[in-house]
Amino acid sequence: MRTTQELLLLAKAASRKGGLYTTEQKNAALYLAADALIEETKPILAANDLDMVQAEGRISQVMLDRLMLNESRIQGMAEGIRQVAALPDPVGRVLSEKTCMEGSAKGLQIKKVTVPMGVISIIYESRPNVTSDAAALAIKAGSACVLRSGKDAWRSAKAIVTAMQKGLEKAGLDPDLIQLVEDVSRQSAVDLMRARGLVDLLIPRGGKGLIQTCVEQSIVPCIETGTGICHVYVDKAADLKKALEIVDNAKTSRPSVCNAEEVLLVHEGVAEAFLPVLKTRLVDDRMVYGKPPVELRLDDAAARIIPGTPAGPEDFDTEFLDYILAVKVVPSVQAAVDHIQEHSTHHSDAIVTEDPAAAATFTAQVDSAAVYLNCSTRFTDGGEFGLGCEMGISTQKLHARGPMGLEELCSYKYIVTGDGQIR
Amino acid sequence: MRTTQELLLLAKAASRKGGLYTTEQKNAALYLAADALIEETKPILAANDLDMVQAEGRISQVMLDRLMLNESRIQGMAEGIRQVAALPDPVGRVLSEKTCMEGSAKGLQIKKVTVPMGVISIIYESRPNVTSDAAALAIKAGSACVLRSGKDAWRSAKAIVTAMQKGLEKAGLDPDLIQLVEDVSRQSAVDLMRARGLVDLLIPRGGKGLIQTCVEQSIVPCIETGTGICHVYVDKAADLKKALEIVDNAKTSRPSVCNAEEVLLVHEGVAEAFLPVLKTRLVDDRMVYGKPPVELRLDDAAARIIPGTPAGPEDFDTEFLDYILAVKVVPSVQAAVDHIQEHSTHHSDAIVTEDPAAAATFTAQVDSAAVYLNCSTRFTDGGEFGLGCEMGISTQKLHARGPMGLEELCSYKYIVTGDGQIR
Repeated sequence: MRTTQELLLLAKAASRKGGLYTTEQKNAALYLAADALIEETKPILAANDLDMVQAEGRISQVMLDRLMLNESRIQGMAEGIRQVAALPDPVGRVLSEKTCMEGSAKGLQIKKVTVPMGVISIIYESRPNVTSDAAALAIKAGSACVLRSGKDAWRSAKAIVTAMQKGLEKAGLDPDLIQLVEDVSRQSAVDLMRARGLVDLLIPRGGKGLIQTCVEQSIVPCIETGTGICHVYVDKAADLKKALEIVDNAKTSRPSVCNAEEVLLVHEGVAEAFLPVLKTRLVDDRMVYGKPPVELRLDDAAARIIPGTPAGPEDFDTEFLDYILAVKVVPSVQAAVDHIQEHSTHHSDAIVTEDPAAAATFTAQVDSAAVYLNCSTRFTDGGEFGLGCEMGISTQKLHARGPMGLEELCSYKYIVTGDGQIR
Repeated sequence: MRTTQELLLLAKAASRKGGLYTTEQKNAALYLAADALIEETKPILAANDLDMVQAEGRISQVMLDRLMLNESRIQGMAEGIRQVAALPDPVGRVLSEKTCMEGSAKGLQIKKVTVPMGVISIIYESRPNVTSDAAALAIKAGSACVLRSGKDAWRSAKAIVTAMQKGLEKAGLDPDLIQLVEDVSRQSAVDLMRARGLVDLLIPRGGKGLIQTCVEQSIVPCIETGTGICHVYVDKAADLKKALEIVDNAKTSRPSVCNAEEVLLVHEGVAEAFLPVLKTRLVDDRMVYGKPPVELRLDDAAARIIPGTPAGPEDFDTEFLDYILAVKVVPSVQAAVDHIQEHSTHHSDAIVTEDPAAAATFTAQVDSAAVYLNCSTRFTDGGEFGLGCEMGISTQKLHARGPMGLEELCSYKYIVTGDGQIR
């Protein structure tokens, strides 16, 4: 077994070449890596079978389904790699350019250009497609990547990485650009967090515990991703039909994802009209159609209008990721904003209103990565936002906010050209 | 004494208003803050006198000079604030805008706009002007600031902050936007580093020890600034006259700053021609003119050409900030690049050459915030780069690289406007 330190040194060395490859070279390598995935379908499925056998009974059915690969999923992964190849190259873009006109700097040309981040490390869980997605994005962004897959998916990840490395090699790229951490103990995650000088960017993708650990222990630059306690606020001037569709969609279309709604705030002026209709839609109708009903956790005011579970204070600070919705009645748009500023994870928050003043207050004051007016929070996504792909959704304000695409995986440098100027 | 936690909560509350002020309001407040500094010259000088008396004998003459205020320095600080007022507002800029044309998102308008960072904390040492500069930049960027001045300058900082707060208040801005930490023990620096949720960006400005501590202990987003082990590489195709002026300027014009040269790399093909001339300029001539000579710390090859101190390996990893220059002879531009990649702090590195191929290799491969061709490293500066000001120089790749101006003190968010769209 190679140590994490050894892999990091290989990645660092390879990363120096990563920024020098042309767009054509990188794209050719990605297409060949996609082909290699298809060609190696058999060994990948064999590795995945072993992962599945080991994981059975140890992880939930939902997690098992995420782990499972088949031919069509491998084709999907290959297609994902090809889509990354088709995106514009984020490296070498000129962000600004100026020629100094006066003083000792006169004649200096100062160019600000995008450059690769260097070594990007991703710590993730057990979805094999994250392996191919993350590697493809890193390669396109001119960086090396050090991937730390969850233990349950390690064999699958290894088979995927091996195939992709063959594609890179065929195209003449250094296969060391993709590294898979071999030590799947917790220690390797800590090693990555402490690898100052070897990891230029660490992206933890996973549960709250992992992200918290990274934030606490990381001494390499790290981006906090994911946790989404997302709110929808239904204003007194809301179109209640739109509100019903938006709340339903934000809560139930995919409750396990970070851009799903967890908390509903309703203006007291429309609570009596809206909440009963909402209860019918989220609870009664769903039961009629055999779908899991949404458990409504109600504050006192809401509980006076519809039946449900009494909400405890922790219900307004919990990412349920489930068919559960906390409901609170508020007296004004400002009260909604204040609640959100206090309890949101600043991922995605929405207002439903036809009142431009309320909309303006909300969008100006709510300090979240994505602020929505009259639409579902579920749109927070790299694809929907036109980034073409996504390495995670940042909930911090430094460097990247919201979906991170290829641009967000790059840095920049200044190139200053002179003719002997001194200061 | 108010605790650091209390000040942070005040700053956080004020920061929510910071982004809502118009450009005119912020500029008016900055002009009034500048006026207030002048009006309060007397109490500021009185406070500074007390600082000076206390510091005398405890800190070096250079540090005492940095600490000392007089009328003209206060005027300079006021002028600095006015210059920030005159800069474009970095908040509310539309970075991108698109209307979705297909799928369930059809008709959604997605706008990416710059927003204030929120609460910016700066830990610095004993230059009183950093207090006014940092506060002005934060206000203009729509953020609150929590300033932690060095102990030696605390009374001066307090008087400056008090004056500026009066200016803010006159303009109708919340004076709580500027906070000065009252606890000057090490504990308050740690408190700032651990204030997750209350500090959106921490900028340590100071020595290596402070920056190292921030990197190690900080759990709030933090930007590494400053340390500069800067190189000048004199290529075999260099114009040696230009090279002489550039090396002299980069080393001796202000050796105590981070963009000063610490290491000279010389191609073996020109070492015998260049090094004797350099020694005459940096050592002999300076002595003739009564200036401090530069101590040359030479690798073996350089020592065979000119006299000097033998270099130890640590001399190529030291930020001297003094009249000391480490000198190494290298066989090629690639060897120079490799040495720089290994030993540079990735702040500012230069090549002197008339060969376009060597220049291209160097500028493409040297992974530093600023890469120079045929000019001095001393130009790395917010003013010179057209940012109009500077909150420090980032040596990391995440978020900001090189000089940080108003734009680098902002974040962004997505505002998505719909008409009932669901996903």
